[in-house]
Amino acid sequence: MRGRFHLPDGLVYLDGNSLGVLPKDVPARLAEVIELEWGTALVGSWDSWMSAPVRVGDKIARLIGAGEGEVVVVDTTTIALVKLLGAALWARPGRNVILTTAENFPTDLYAAEGIARLLGEVEVRYAEADTVAESLDETVAVLMLTQVDFRTGAMFDIASLTKAAHEAGALIVWDLCHSVGAVVVECERDGVDLAVGCCYKYLNGGPGAPAFVYVRRELQDVVENPLPGWLGHEAPFDFTTTYRPAPGVGRFLSSSPCVLGISALDVALDVWEGVTMEAVRAKSEALTELFIEAVLERLGDELELASPRNRAERGSQVSFRHAQGYRIVQALIARGVVGDFRAPDLCRFGFAPLYLRFTDVFDAVEALAEVVSSHQYEAERYSIRRLVT
Amino acid sequence: MRGRFHLPDGLVYLDGNSLGVLPKDVPARLAEVIELEWGTALVGSWDSWMSAPVRVGDKIARLIGAGEGEVVVVDTTTIALVKLLGAALWARPGRNVILTTAENFPTDLYAAEGIARLLGEVEVRYAEADTVAESLDETVAVLMLTQVDFRTGAMFDIASLTKAAHEAGALIVWDLCHSVGAVVVECERDGVDLAVGCCYKYLNGGPGAPAFVYVRRELQDVVENPLPGWLGHEAPFDFTTTYRPAPGVGRFLSSSPCVLGISALDVALDVWEGVTMEAVRAKSEALTELFIEAVLERLGDELELASPRNRAERGSQVSFRHAQGYRIVQALIARGVVGDFRAPDLCRFGFAPLYLRFTDVFDAVEALAEVVSSHQYEAERYSIRRLVT
Repeated sequence: MRGRFHLPDGLVYLDGNSLGVLPKDVPARLAEVIELEWGTALVGSWDSWMSAPVRVGDKIARLIGAGEGEVVVVDTTTIALVKLLGAALWARPGRNVILTTAENFPTDLYAAEGIARLLGEVEVRYAEADTVAESLDETVAVLMLTQVDFRTGAMFDIASLTKAAHEAGALIVWDLCHSVGAVVVECERDGVDLAVGCCYKYLNGGPGAPAFVYVRRELQDVVENPLPGWLGHEAPFDFTTTYRPAPGVGRFLSSSPCVLGISALDVALDVWEGVTMEAVRAKSEALTELFIEAVLERLGDELELASPRNRAERGSQVSFRHAQGYRIVQALIARGVVGDFRAPDLCRFGFAPLYLRFTDVFDAVEALAEVVSSHQYEAERYSIRRLVT
Repeated sequence: MRGRFHLPDGLVYLDGNSLGVLPKDVPARLAEVIELEWGTALVGSWDSWMSAPVRVGDKIARLIGAGEGEVVVVDTTTIALVKLLGAALWARPGRNVILTTAENFPTDLYAAEGIARLLGEVEVRYAEADTVAESLDETVAVLMLTQVDFRTGAMFDIASLTKAAHEAGALIVWDLCHSVGAVVVECERDGVDLAVGCCYKYLNGGPGAPAFVYVRRELQDVVENPLPGWLGHEAPFDFTTTYRPAPGVGRFLSSSPCVLGISALDVALDVWEGVTMEAVRAKSEALTELFIEAVLERLGDELELASPRNRAERGSQVSFRHAQGYRIVQALIARGVVGDFRAPDLCRFGFAPLYLRFTDVFDAVEALAEVVSSHQYEAERYSIRRLVT
């Protein structure tokens, strides 16, 4: 698969969990969209552009164990979360709590606090990661969790927590930003109600690619979009004064799609044809396992593993703690090994299974050992900018 | 200016009020963004991508009489409207009415009904277009109007209605979707509080380009974003559990920008360097005036003018009513004259002043006369698809 991506020479890119690399088919396809669809066909292209959110959504559905017509590409993760949380709260009248964890990605928390403030009398309640199930009670309308922790890569079990939420009478919203394209997710099998995800990480949809929303089929005509717009209307071109939601997942659309963004994502997703998530996950586990083993063996006295040691409990990233983490990451970047830093002390390395090789892992460990064991980072101040421009 | 745009051969494009044409500089710039910024520099590009929403916003500010740091490129028109309406309602406690007109673009109404439902006890009240000022009272928190009517091109006076809103103690939200790039707008001079606009019409930012938000400087630290997200945080990379709004207009950001969309818009806006809106407006008036005169002279018995006859009262589009409007528009498209149809009977023609010529107006009238006077449309069913593929 590696051959289908553009990977800069000499770079060991362990940041695909932040921004995925460029699929080789994207430039030509985008040129076509810009020059032919926009430049020449103009408004004549709207028919196909309008159908893109659900059509591209179907390509994502397959990667998260969802069916056709259960996923739509829309807005951004933050706005998508507001929509799903509002929809879930309305679908559980008499309950007024959004349960989540304080370690959740901040924008998820801001989205929750935002919808809570808008609706009024809604509480955002925080559970510890290991006591989520016990924290569910009859006041909880919706449990919102990010499956893979963005700092440590620690992973929640979707099946058991979805079941726990349902047993407590709550709906579940899974944030799959760090899952889709890296982890086996089975929305249908596990009875997931609602989910969002990001398309610019493991899906390689490009910087600021639109997000996606998954809505379980049985719920689609029950839940309502709290941010309605004309593209989610049953008949947008009737231009009626009163909103009538479209049938199906399309009701979670508000506006016309960002055509350039969704077109890049569309072609980026073609890479996944014929790829099984089981194979991707196996490669991911092998990569992270090798990295952890090698780092602990060579640098176990200096770096503390922040990710779960048990492969079944972590996503496709590995984080190590070090008081000088920021400088270490900068020094690595200067050596062509790109990870990233998360305050206060995390060196974070993502392993995108489609394009990383075991040899990349060895090279990364070698560079890390050189930087850490020789304390070279102490004198250095680099940025990726210097490297790539 | 026409030379800076790609205009398909033989096409008279009177639909730039729906989707603007392709600026010639866009393809090369987008190729650079995709291949170099994304493909090669990867996460190293985030510094410049992150600053794009406010930097590109400044280019728009000049076109609507706003100052630097008063405009940010963000989301879509619908989501931007929800943000501004929520912010305005919170800024006027004790008042609970959004006043607007039923002729407003539907998504504006859905956004208003959406935020009203979320907040509860908020009423969306409808005034007639000619009694807006009289309908303002002490219950109105915010007056939301679209300056140029999307069906008829009839134009509200921003100065007097903004003044009327303020005298009634309300805030004003102007929708500038059909104004920006076609009409002289003076936000600062006229005391406009809040505004949104679309970038894929007269600004030629490309299909589904992001929207913009204008927030008057004095209000920026007073109003709050009801859909907060991490990019609108004072320090996004601190990843704090609690939201602290950024100073300035940047607080209306939620997520990372759609880089492909905003990059196309960025370069599309360079076309406007050195262009004054007074010159644009003069050309626009001359184009629409010529079109109306010629159509009324030749087809005045068959087509009824739906737009204001007085040039000062209309935007940059002209609509005519005809019971067979849909077929007429289709027959025109088959002849290479692209306007559009709005139910039930409007033939709508937009005049983008930067790239339309007077000769285009003559050609359009000629085609319209041929179609209407000979009743040729009766036998025809065409679509732009057939023309351009």
